[in-house]
Amino acid sequence: MRREDLKGLHPREIRSYVREGRWREHTGGFAEGYVQANLVVLPRNLAFDFLVFCQRNPQPCPVLEVTDIGVPTLKYMAKDADLRTDLPMYKVWEKGQCVAEVENVLDYWSDELVAFLLGCSASLDWALLKAGVRLRHAELDMLPCAYISNIQCEPAGAFRGPMVVTMRSILKDQVARSFQVTSRYPAVHGAPVHVGDPRQIGINNLDDVDLGQRTPLSQLEPDEVPLFHACGATPQVVALEAKPEFMISHFPGCMFITDVLLEEIGVL
Amino acid sequence: MRREDLKGLHPREIRSYVREGRWREHTGGFAEGYVQANLVVLPRNLAFDFLVFCQRNPQPCPVLEVTDIGVPTLKYMAKDADLRTDLPMYKVWEKGQCVAEVENVLDYWSDELVAFLLGCSASLDWALLKAGVRLRHAELDMLPCAYISNIQCEPAGAFRGPMVVTMRSILKDQVARSFQVTSRYPAVHGAPVHVGDPRQIGINNLDDVDLGQRTPLSQLEPDEVPLFHACGATPQVVALEAKPEFMISHFPGCMFITDVLLEEIGVL
Repeated sequence: MRREDLKGLHPREIRSYVREGRWREHTGGFAEGYVQANLVVLPRNLAFDFLVFCQRNPQPCPVLEVTDIGVPTLKYMAKDADLRTDLPMYKVWEKGQCVAEVENVLDYWSDELVAFLLGCSASLDWALLKAGVRLRHAELDMLPCAYISNIQCEPAGAFRGPMVVTMRSILKDQVARSFQVTSRYPAVHGAPVHVGDPRQIGINNLDDVDLGQRTPLSQLEPDEVPLFHACGATPQVVALEAKPEFMISHFPGCMFITDVLLEEIGVL
Repeated sequence: MRREDLKGLHPREIRSYVREGRWREHTGGFAEGYVQANLVVLPRNLAFDFLVFCQRNPQPCPVLEVTDIGVPTLKYMAKDADLRTDLPMYKVWEKGQCVAEVENVLDYWSDELVAFLLGCSASLDWALLKAGVRLRHAELDMLPCAYISNIQCEPAGAFRGPMVVTMRSILKDQVARSFQVTSRYPAVHGAPVHVGDPRQIGINNLDDVDLGQRTPLSQLEPDEVPLFHACGATPQVVALEAKPEFMISHFPGCMFITDVLLEEIGVL
């Protein structure tokens, strides 16, 4: 299927195409207005520490739902969804090393696992666009560049490490509006964590994209300002440091699309 | 000491008087602008389920901080505080039964315990007063009436039960403002959960106060509307249902006073 065929569908329909194996790429721009989510799956013995990590780091890790132990379905964010099959691509990790990139995790699931859905900045894009903020990456159907900053997350148990941030090149006249709009949505990372000089958060060169591909987006135009938001890829980076025995995550950009409108949750 | 002597002090000073045993009563109106918190302490084997319960019920259970296992001090909400001594009064519970009301819990603490600080509606009062909303209970140095509603919390593990709500009698012309102001503070229960007819949430008679004492406050004046907020006493009621082996909580109204200004957290 083509991206244009899926973009305007209801999340339930998109998930069903994904489940059938007909879409394996990123979900940016899909189901506008609906919350997209990062996925982190961990064994139950790490679940408490991870949830405390999220509580201490709500900007990179805004928790949307935690499943009951061993249960791969959801109670709140989507009906009839199965977290083992409804994301386009997954990564499977052992001791911080990616050991597989797979289209579903049916063979990896067990009744010892707990899934966490965390808000995703794809939904931030929608909020910004709706407020008239120009986003070049959205015009190009691309994802924002992501970097590993030198902002340290608050640790919890074995979970510790730097915050991953997304960068959006914003017209200088739309910076204030971008702060206002994203502040309204703490469930999808909320207000920016930095604006301006990338070196102040440890990013020496915007061309050195840490997650995803280097793109023309890393080149700022003269009237643009780089705006940085906490990114839900942070737990993946943190996992590299914590080296949990086992973990499943979404593949970057390939998110879980919920049935919940952004305006329904965590909005002021 | 008299209430007036303590009201205007910094949280650190109030906690030190409390620790010395010089204040054993409610903390309503103390340290205006600083966040007050409910305390729940549980054994580590229940901590994950309880934290998921809080995640699913953010209005009654807005988590401010979770301590590391066995650690009675805080990293974020207050420096130099000891949760075992710095609240005016505690309740100790076994299997859902209150077995002691004590001035400190030094003898009850163990390295298996995890403490949760949850936002408290005493801080909501401050936000409302600052916005010019008349609160009769504050004028009388009393606490708002609290009731067990028929709104069911979302369950998690063994934790389930009805939501406790506080009722404030608000001038009918200040209802909109009250919604606006409290919506800004999700960390201290946020927007009201109900306005108007108490029977719609299972409260048949406002004189039948479930928590705390029956007071003149339960009598509404003709130009007043009852406004209901989720209450941080909810986990105590939920504990009665879950019957955990062991639990410590604050004594109603006798809160932990943090060093954090309400305007510093969870505010839009």
